[in-house]
Amino acid sequence: MSGFKGVVPYLVSPLREDGRVDRAVLTRLVDHLIEAGVHGLTPLGSTGEFAYLTPAQRHEVVEVTLEAARGRVPVIAGVAATATADAVRQARDYAAMGADGILAILEAYFPIDEDGVVAYFSAVAEAVDLPVVLYTNPNFQRSDLSLKAIERLAAISNIGYVKDASTNTGRLLSILDRVGDRMAVFAASSHVTTAVMLLGGVGWMAGPACLVPERSVALYDLCVAKRWDEAMVLQRRMWRINQVFARYALAAAIKTGLELQGFPVGPPIPPQAPIGPAGRDEIARVLEDLANP
Amino acid sequence: MSGFKGVVPYLVSPLREDGRVDRAVLTRLVDHLIEAGVHGLTPLGSTGEFAYLTPAQRHEVVEVTLEAARGRVPVIAGVAATATADAVRQARDYAAMGADGILAILEAYFPIDEDGVVAYFSAVAEAVDLPVVLYTNPNFQRSDLSLKAIERLAAISNIGYVKDASTNTGRLLSILDRVGDRMAVFAASSHVTTAVMLLGGVGWMAGPACLVPERSVALYDLCVAKRWDEAMVLQRRMWRINQVFARYALAAAIKTGLELQGFPVGPPIPPQAPIGPAGRDEIARVLEDLANP
Amino acid sequence: MSGFKGVVPYLVSPLREDGRVDRAVLTRLVDHLIEAGVHGLTPLGSTGEFAYLTPAQRHEVVEVTLEAARGRVPVIAGVAATATADAVRQARDYAAMGADGILAILEAYFPIDEDGVVAYFSAVAEAVDLPVVLYTNPNFQRSDLSLKAIERLAAISNIGYVKDASTNTGRLLSILDRVGDRMAVFAASSHVTTAVMLLGGVGWMAGPACLVPERSVALYDLCVAKRWDEAMVLQRRMWRINQVFARYALAAAIKTGLELQGFPVGPPIPPQAPIGPAGRDEIARVLEDLANP
Amino acid sequence: MSGFKGVVPYLVSPLREDGRVDRAVLTRLVDHLIEAGVHGLTPLGSTGEFAYLTPAQRHEVVEVTLEAARGRVPVIAGVAATATADAVRQARDYAAMGADGILAILEAYFPIDEDGVVAYFSAVAEAVDLPVVLYTNPNFQRSDLSLKAIERLAAISNIGYVKDASTNTGRLLSILDRVGDRMAVFAASSHVTTAVMLLGGVGWMAGPACLVPERSVALYDLCVAKRWDEAMVLQRRMWRINQVFARYALAAAIKTGLELQGFPVGPPIPPQAPIGPAGRDEIARVLEDLANP
Repeated sequence: MSGFKGVVPYLVSPLREDGRVDRAVLTRLVDHLIEAGVHGLTPLGSTGEFAYLTPAQRHEVVEVTLEAARGRVPVIAGVAATATADAVRQARDYAAMGADGILAILEAYFPIDEDGVVAYFSAVAEAVDLPVVLYTNPNFQRSDLSLKAIERLAAISNIGYVKDASTNTGRLLSILDRVGDRMAVFAASSHVTTAVMLLGGVGWMAGPACLVPERSVALYDLCVAKRWDEAMVLQRRMWRINQVFARYALAAAIKTGLELQGFPVGPPIPPQAPIGPAGRDEIARVLEDLANP
Repeated sequence: MSGFKGVVPYLVSPLREDGRVDRAVLTRLVDHLIEAGVHGLTPLGSTGEFAYLTPAQRHEVVEVTLEAARGRVPVIAGVAATATADAVRQARDYAAMGADGILAILEAYFPIDEDGVVAYFSAVAEAVDLPVVLYTNPNFQRSDLSLKAIERLAAISNIGYVKDASTNTGRLLSILDRVGDRMAVFAASSHVTTAVMLLGGVGWMAGPACLVPERSVALYDLCVAKRWDEAMVLQRRMWRINQVFARYALAAAIKTGLELQGFPVGPPIPPQAPIGPAGRDEIARVLEDLANP
Repeated sequence: MSGFKGVVPYLVSPLREDGRVDRAVLTRLVDHLIEAGVHGLTPLGSTGEFAYLTPAQRHEVVEVTLEAARGRVPVIAGVAATATADAVRQARDYAAMGADGILAILEAYFPIDEDGVVAYFSAVAEAVDLPVVLYTNPNFQRSDLSLKAIERLAAISNIGYVKDASTNTGRLLSILDRVGDRMAVFAASSHVTTAVMLLGGVGWMAGPACLVPERSVALYDLCVAKRWDEAMVLQRRMWRINQVFARYALAAAIKTGLELQGFPVGPPIPPQAPIGPAGRDEIARVLEDLANP
Repeated sequence: MSGFKGVVPYLVSPLREDGRVDRAVLTRLVDHLIEAGVHGLTPLGSTGEFAYLTPAQRHEVVEVTLEAARGRVPVIAGVAATATADAVRQARDYAAMGADGILAILEAYFPIDEDGVVAYFSAVAEAVDLPVVLYTNPNFQRSDLSLKAIERLAAISNIGYVKDASTNTGRLLSILDRVGDRMAVFAASSHVTTAVMLLGGVGWMAGPACLVPERSVALYDLCVAKRWDEAMVLQRRMWRINQVFARYALAAAIKTGLELQGFPVGPPIPPQAPIGPAGRDEIARVLEDLANP
């Protein structure tokens, strides 16, 4: 395993009115997060609204992230497609640009059987010389990675990670039990990250880390130090942010929070609805509470 | 209402090995269907694998269809996107190319509320001077058109049709009850089309019509003549084809059937799996049976 | 086949405050429906709140129905259980009391595989010398009758009917295609009954028929006479009642409608909520409209 | 709070061929579990097949459990019904027999709104002078306890616990965040119990504890001592049993395991299928592995 670990924020994708990526804001956000101590960055995760961006916008988001990160932390770029050929093309493009890893996502329209799922992720892995993180989010994607599929994919040498965005924490232990010697597990914001770390996880890839990067790193450090009870005290404070975001659309909520923190990342891409005033206030309150010592 | 009606096959999208659209095969298929009497053509429906094509491939499929149809029947081009701006761009592109109507499809990643759904379809309709067919397929799309949303959208003058690919036939009568004076209803292959015609439908848009165009037109004519009992005799024979296709992935099954009929349209786009030998035999048998008088 | 057909209302189960069945009201309702021309009666369907009644209440509902019907129309009593032994006991009890047929329902807690489903219904059929109607309602029951299971069950001589309360009308044609020579199909209120009759159905078993028995019989007669277009005119008026009931809990809505018609059948069994004033008014309006010529 | 905590096995319900409860076997199982150190016992949970038992069988299961326990550990009896009146009757019956607590379960046929859910559980709590544990299992029950409903129910003084059998571990932290000062949380076998203990849980109610009571108690003791890393080592070994049981029907699997351990508890109640030879072997292997030091 190549060593991805820790707090890896899912970046938002700030767009200008003309549809171009807002390079200045994204660059500033990347700087801010790295200075706060995050261990990696993921452009084009769910929070990055990959599903709403054109191929050109996706390319530009990865490009800006790489330029802004300047090698200080690994950049794991999201590849998402319904067609295998499209995914391979994206993966090669990001590798050529200098990405440090690939977060691989399968979108589906017609149902895909296990062989198809394995073929898709295998093709992405074989297209690049980079470590690959499998990403499954059964809530938003019309496909899932079964334990059996994960087991088959673990045989491919550069597939070294899985990021599970289900809410089923026990499933992570089942994954570790089966392929824990070959794959590392990242949590998502739908899991209690301290619990996942206790189970043997290596970190988390999540949108909310954009908003509370220092706190996230502090929580990670407590987990690594196996100071579990102290970690839970901090975790409980931080869980409020996940609860708030679970009530709203994810990308919209993170973008609203960043606007409140002085990053003009804009609204979610239509027809997604922006967060209304009540939601904005609720997000403001929870961020303010977490800003206190 | 501008008068779309009858049998409107959902065309497949034949691709060559290099990923370009196979213009020759698609042209021949379009000719064949028009000569068989179909009343319109829809490139880029579900059967057309819109969800698996690049923007350039989508453009080319519509272009070839329009060139091949040469105005003999209306071409209703499928627009599908998650982002409103992308859908508007597609709709304008197809209108500029000479499409006669737009089949509008909303894909979703994050859930979209009713206001967002209405905003998306309204934007597509306002982007073009063409009649628009709303398309909802709750089985494959992560969004649905509620009766209330359809009612709101019926107020837009060029939204004149709805094509419902649920299996809930009663829902079509509910739609007709609410907006039947302003919108016409097309069936999909998940419905018994004779039943939908009896309820007041104007025709059907469906992939299987690619394979049995004459039979489909004959069934439509019996329905229009209100010879319902004769229609049901034919319908029962034809239902076998829907039952077979319900057991397999739709695009894969239609492509296999066309291959059997001498149209080398190729396999479904990976990671979709091609139909195996047993399925191929079953499709061959049902087509053969329908070819008999 | 023994000849069940036509309009078979699902009776409500009126309870007194002390939990005993209100025999007077139920007797009067049975008389009223038979005088209106219905072709059979079903106590203990979904509308009959079988799932909310004690064994003693269920027994009494069947007893009163049989006494009130006095052999004028067949009484098809609902048997519903999770355990096979319980279902067999109910079926024998109702047979001993003189029921003319059994409506067999499988409730489930843990998932039951196809063999278990077939074993359950087979055991019910073998327990009695009466015709059995299979009932499947995938919306409310945690099990379903697959086409394959129905095909296996059609081999049992006294299983002669299936009543499907899904919304998938095409499924009924698939059933008829496979076992139409051995089983007859009844529609439910979730289907457009005229469409099901056109497909080859023999009638419908449904709660709303309690409220509009004459209209239901008139619609059935038009269907039997193959006057499909006239049937559809009446059907469209009657569909409003199904639409209203789809918005409310079924048993609650039917009970409210019967109260409005002068049958004090009481509220639904708690914790089911009674229909509020707005719903009551909506039900009153639709019934009034249907009472006009 | 009255102090329920620790390992509380969900007892199976052993039936003889004549349908009577096998009192001897159940008594022996209760003795065995108490001697192994469990902290409480729950007759009539999911594993106890409450959904498949007659009222008389349910009564007898609770009676035998109470007699066998002889007050050595608290007995928390499962109350499950669709109708409020039935649940109240059960709760009073078990209270009169000497149960120490009530595990309250809402079954549903028609959907029940939040007010109905709250009314049902409130009625059960008000019917008895015993502590009540709310139980929600969204996988098998056609209703769920929303966070809002749990918050409303926490206001009732003798509702002191919630047992959540979803797979969503984060939900437990949300519950603790909202009502942790008034309600204690029990895990189910779908959760990693060590993770739930870290989050602040007080124990677990689960079928598998019937098979590995000493190991379960050892795990609980490590958690209480906050020796989290040692707990995880044991947890990982024990998770195998949950993984095996997740592949099979729960009651069938636990009954098979107990048969292998010398408790002739019989097969699951038909139409549930018994575990076949392959499953039996797999369960034997995992139990044997856990029996080693």
